[in-house]
Amino acid sequence: MTHHIHTIAFDGDDTLWHNESLYALTQEKFAALLSPYHDAAWVEKKLYETEMHNMRLYGYGLKAMTLSMIETAIDLTEGRIRGYEIQQIIDAAKAIRQANIALLDGAAATVAALSGQYRLMLITKGDLLDQEAKIASSGLADYFDDVEIVSEKTAVTYQTIFAKYQIPPERFLMVGNSLKSDVLPVVELGGMGVHVPYHITWEHEAVREEDGETAVYHTLQSLTQLPALLAQLAPTSASASDSPHAT
Amino acid sequence: MTHHIHTIAFDGDDTLWHNESLYALTQEKFAALLSPYHDAAWVEKKLYETEMHNMRLYGYGLKAMTLSMIETAIDLTEGRIRGYEIQQIIDAAKAIRQANIALLDGAAATVAALSGQYRLMLITKGDLLDQEAKIASSGLADYFDDVEIVSEKTAVTYQTIFAKYQIPPERFLMVGNSLKSDVLPVVELGGMGVHVPYHITWEHEAVREEDGETAVYHTLQSLTQLPALLAQLAPTSASASDSPHAT
Repeated sequence: MTHHIHTIAFDGDDTLWHNESLYALTQEKFAALLSPYHDAAWVEKKLYETEMHNMRLYGYGLKAMTLSMIETAIDLTEGRIRGYEIQQIIDAAKAIRQANIALLDGAAATVAALSGQYRLMLITKGDLLDQEAKIASSGLADYFDDVEIVSEKTAVTYQTIFAKYQIPPERFLMVGNSLKSDVLPVVELGGMGVHVPYHITWEHEAVREEDGETAVYHTLQSLTQLPALLAQLAPTSASASDSPHAT
Repeated sequence: MTHHIHTIAFDGDDTLWHNESLYALTQEKFAALLSPYHDAAWVEKKLYETEMHNMRLYGYGLKAMTLSMIETAIDLTEGRIRGYEIQQIIDAAKAIRQANIALLDGAAATVAALSGQYRLMLITKGDLLDQEAKIASSGLADYFDDVEIVSEKTAVTYQTIFAKYQIPPERFLMVGNSLKSDVLPVVELGGMGVHVPYHITWEHEAVREEDGETAVYHTLQSLTQLPALLAQLAPTSASASDSPHAT
């Protein structure tokens, strides 16, 4: 007997491939550039404020971060920063996209093992071009039946995807490193959420303990544990809510 | 008797709503800012070069243009430009997104008239967040059965959309202001292309005469002529290639 999940969706950044670590490195370079003016903690705080202020206008991704770094640098130097210093910010950010994508340990093997057995989706948030480039260079594109690049991951986003692909929520499992974006909205809609934490969480994606405390989801230390979790879940499909006459 | 088109797709920027005119205005402000250093024609030429150089990395849209303007300003001043001047570039670009969207004359009436009669799609190229914001504020979203935001509009892009929605190309009509992005790739695949020129064409979207000379497509002066064109096309559906036993 198999359990009732038929669609497994993966997040991309920091679930299948490293991302936040590259951004953190770039922000370190940024703080170093501004170190003659302010200490690193202050630079980091002001950058985060600028990013949140620009979020509605710029969204996520590399271009958004670059523009927010430039604005922060102008603000923190009261407009005195020079063009050649701003060029260093632009170059540091461009280096992220030129860096080879690094898959997380076990990501390729896990996706390969589940493909064929399940309908696999990739649901990733951010800049369209950034994400397309990462998917293409990940080498994993062929394992996914469908790819959705979205600007936010809220319950409405997942509802739209369920409607578009006619997926019953109870047959849908989402795996990702962000409780806020990958797990809680899916659980809210009746789907299954699997949290695989990454070693760095961007402050914007952090969830306070109490936000998620009533939600029921699974936590894994590594993506490689996912097939075992799916196997364990199998018996639960014989519960009362999944009687034989249900399709 | 009706003709065989069942899906009509519209481009967004400069087809349903004004876009290039806002960008042109911003680039005028940019040239004015750099006028102490270089004349406007040279600034425009260098900006275009920077945009093309950055295209693969940044794609289309407001953030891409802003970053390319900043880089051009740094380059043309040999790094001497100051932060407060760069802030003026950022502010001018942000003003584009804060401007209310202005629909082209007749766009709303045409889309409204055709909805219900045809499956309507919106296929628009550019930055995900930019396009989502424009679609939302256009007031036209509810008329469209499907919306696709893409990073490029090539024959492969349209092929992917045809496969995803199971649309036979010969039943598909695309309307847009760009011969290169909206018309020629669709005609290449066997669909129908309708060109409605906008009064400004960004150099990157321009097609040399010879590129499009063998393609067969329709040209309208205004979107409002589209229902009349569809009515005129009706008799051709009785041609030899569309015999009664074809579905």
